[in-house]
Amino acid sequence: MNPIITLTTDFGLKDYFVGTLKGTIYKELHDARIVDISHNISPFNIQECAYILKNSYEHFPEGTIHIVGVDSEPTPENQHVAVLVNGHYFISANNGVIGLITSEIEPEKVVELNIPNPSHGSFPVLDVFVQVACHIARGGTLEVVGKSFDQLKDLREFSPTVMDNGNKIIGSVIYIDAYGNVVTNINRNFFEAYRKGRDFEITARTTKFTKIHNKYSDIINFDLDKGQRKGAGDRLALFNSANYIQLAIYKSDLNTVGGASTLLGLDFRDTVTVTFS
Amino acid sequence: MNPIITLTTDFGLKDYFVGTLKGTIYKELHDARIVDISHNISPFNIQECAYILKNSYEHFPEGTIHIVGVDSEPTPENQHVAVLVNGHYFISANNGVIGLITSEIEPEKVVELNIPNPSHGSFPVLDVFVQVACHIARGGTLEVVGKSFDQLKDLREFSPTVMDNGNKIIGSVIYIDAYGNVVTNINRNFFEAYRKGRDFEITARTTKFTKIHNKYSDIINFDLDKGQRKGAGDRLALFNSANYIQLAIYKSDLNTVGGASTLLGLDFRDTVTVTFS
Amino acid sequence: MNPIITLTTDFGLKDYFVGTLKGTIYKELHDARIVDISHNISPFNIQECAYILKNSYEHFPEGTIHIVGVDSEPTPENQHVAVLVNGHYFISANNGVIGLITSEIEPEKVVELNIPNPSHGSFPVLDVFVQVACHIARGGTLEVVGKSFDQLKDLREFSPTVMDNGNKIIGSVIYIDAYGNVVTNINRNFFEAYRKGRDFEITARTTKFTKIHNKYSDIINFDLDKGQRKGAGDRLALFNSANYIQLAIYKSDLNTVGGASTLLGLDFRDTVTVTFS
Repeated sequence: MNPIITLTTDFGLKDYFVGTLKGTIYKELHDARIVDISHNISPFNIQECAYILKNSYEHFPEGTIHIVGVDSEPTPENQHVAVLVNGHYFISANNGVIGLITSEIEPEKVVELNIPNPSHGSFPVLDVFVQVACHIARGGTLEVVGKSFDQLKDLREFSPTVMDNGNKIIGSVIYIDAYGNVVTNINRNFFEAYRKGRDFEITARTTKFTKIHNKYSDIINFDLDKGQRKGAGDRLALFNSANYIQLAIYKSDLNTVGGASTLLGLDFRDTVTVTFS
Repeated sequence: MNPIITLTTDFGLKDYFVGTLKGTIYKELHDARIVDISHNISPFNIQECAYILKNSYEHFPEGTIHIVGVDSEPTPENQHVAVLVNGHYFISANNGVIGLITSEIEPEKVVELNIPNPSHGSFPVLDVFVQVACHIARGGTLEVVGKSFDQLKDLREFSPTVMDNGNKIIGSVIYIDAYGNVVTNINRNFFEAYRKGRDFEITARTTKFTKIHNKYSDIINFDLDKGQRKGAGDRLALFNSANYIQLAIYKSDLNTVGGASTLLGLDFRDTVTVTFS
Repeated sequence: MNPIITLTTDFGLKDYFVGTLKGTIYKELHDARIVDISHNISPFNIQECAYILKNSYEHFPEGTIHIVGVDSEPTPENQHVAVLVNGHYFISANNGVIGLITSEIEPEKVVELNIPNPSHGSFPVLDVFVQVACHIARGGTLEVVGKSFDQLKDLREFSPTVMDNGNKIIGSVIYIDAYGNVVTNINRNFFEAYRKGRDFEITARTTKFTKIHNKYSDIINFDLDKGQRKGAGDRLALFNSANYIQLAIYKSDLNTVGGASTLLGLDFRDTVTVTFS
């Protein structure tokens, strides 16, 4: 059975781009298994792309081939690369997305692609990445399509800063999800390493939190009558399913009651501080 | 061949959630067949979810497994359940979505899930529902993953009220579709049962209808010249493809000419009345 | 192995429509291969649908069956048709979408569908097109489901006008993509046929271009320091991956910095002129 090929792009779902990719893959591999991770990355937003790919790829079977179609034009500074890391293949421009993954896990192989791009055009995901993905899916090696490469770019936005002799973490907002939940770049391991069991206060603009929950409904006391409980509209901090600190509104909806981003006034790149006491 | 697993969620299509679910399913079932019903349910909107699931599930082959990822955190009041009804499996929190289906068709089996949630986190669709779906897909029984349960919640929003000795139906708007069409909770059978062949008037705010069509173009008289016909922008009532009374604008587009919701000023939960004479 | 069935519709991705189509296809063909081309065509927008289908269908394997679910109600003027052209099957209403394809390539077979529509309702894509697609997928012929037809409608919007003895092309905007890129109806072959090697000026409102690039990063001079280069926010004209002249902003994002449509003030159907000198 063919390995899975995933697609993570900023192409959107209206255009002919995604259909064209899939048609072309099926032409090469009759029994391809293609899975969309996301086509709704904000245009050219490498941070969002890295966040989404990093938190989904490991859930796929080993050997899966991940195509990254964000900021994918090759330039002298953004080479086309293929990487084997943690049992997964990635095909991308060298824009930092894969660097986020290889900064934590040593890659087994990194190559700069050197196969010809027949069209020299603006759709290298179709002209180059799909060909490489099908080559790998058929059992081909990275050496055949590229030459060894050791300059994968990293993404610094995901690293919070530590100050005050470890008493303060300065993080930032790296992602806002469909519910308006505000995801910070402070993950659970990082947080616990500096916390060392102490009390803490999380500050985001004028809002403060002194507890981090594991799930949304943890803030509800189901022993109380419904009228007396916390509920929809109340705010909380929790470790999200990717294990990052996330600020949230219970049962938020950006189109009606609002979410943490709108109600707490937080946007991409805003500062979130943790102070230990 | 594996049964189909469908996904109906409010996760949206940007995030890592849906990709993660699919990757995990493929890890367990190499030849899984996964179909998205919708990931664009409005956040926590049980009514929308129930409407969409109820009107699509029966079109799938018997034995299909439907995962419901809306308002899925388990609480003392929203237990995790798995249900076999009408030849289809459903895995959901007990929030009313499945109750809408079982209120019309007696379920064959209902269990409250009691498998452990390894993460105790905020993503039970991944941690619990996917495991249960794969268990069923491999031929496992509901008894192995849960214990018998008889308190499925119902959704009252789908029942219109009858007044005036059966001369009046008070319905409401349960859904607004992508064209701005306004769907009421009055279905064809209910309507005809009270109509008994009489004339009628449908009132929604200041708009009245005295006919219900079967398709949009029924309002066009193709014998007339184009300039003299009704056409784009004209309003009508029809039984939609789910057999509910729906108020519509011919060839509506919410981004340009508008749709029934914007042009008639109707929103979710607004009243729509049928008066028989 | 079954041929692929593609779906191109304006149904959106929230509703039960797409899930219902897929469930029904799987009921008829257990091992169906279904690919979404797009469900986000603007409602009833035949031009958008034609543009997207024309630029994706050929990338699929020969024998693929393409279902078109835009403006699909049958009327005396929009008959249901099935067409075999260029090795691909299309099932659509006769609204011009297929005419755009057959205006360039002679169709092998065109039939007007005459199978019964059991529901006479507003969802003929489900009631009729899916049945025809499954019939073809099982090896059935078009003659069984329809009778010969020779009145496929054409779409004139895709033809620019030539003036001034071939010194001027008057084109128009046929599509705006997710990045805000503005696509004109002037394709590369048409442009080069009239250019004959001359200099030219493209005018769109108050903006002028005298070069057409092949990819976005062609406008960047990577020999310069980053601060001195052109970059995000700069505008360019290029031949897009479908070979149409497209006006673009380098690294545009409609939600943040804007795109060509918002920054140059261009909308669907606006005029774009090429003057040769």
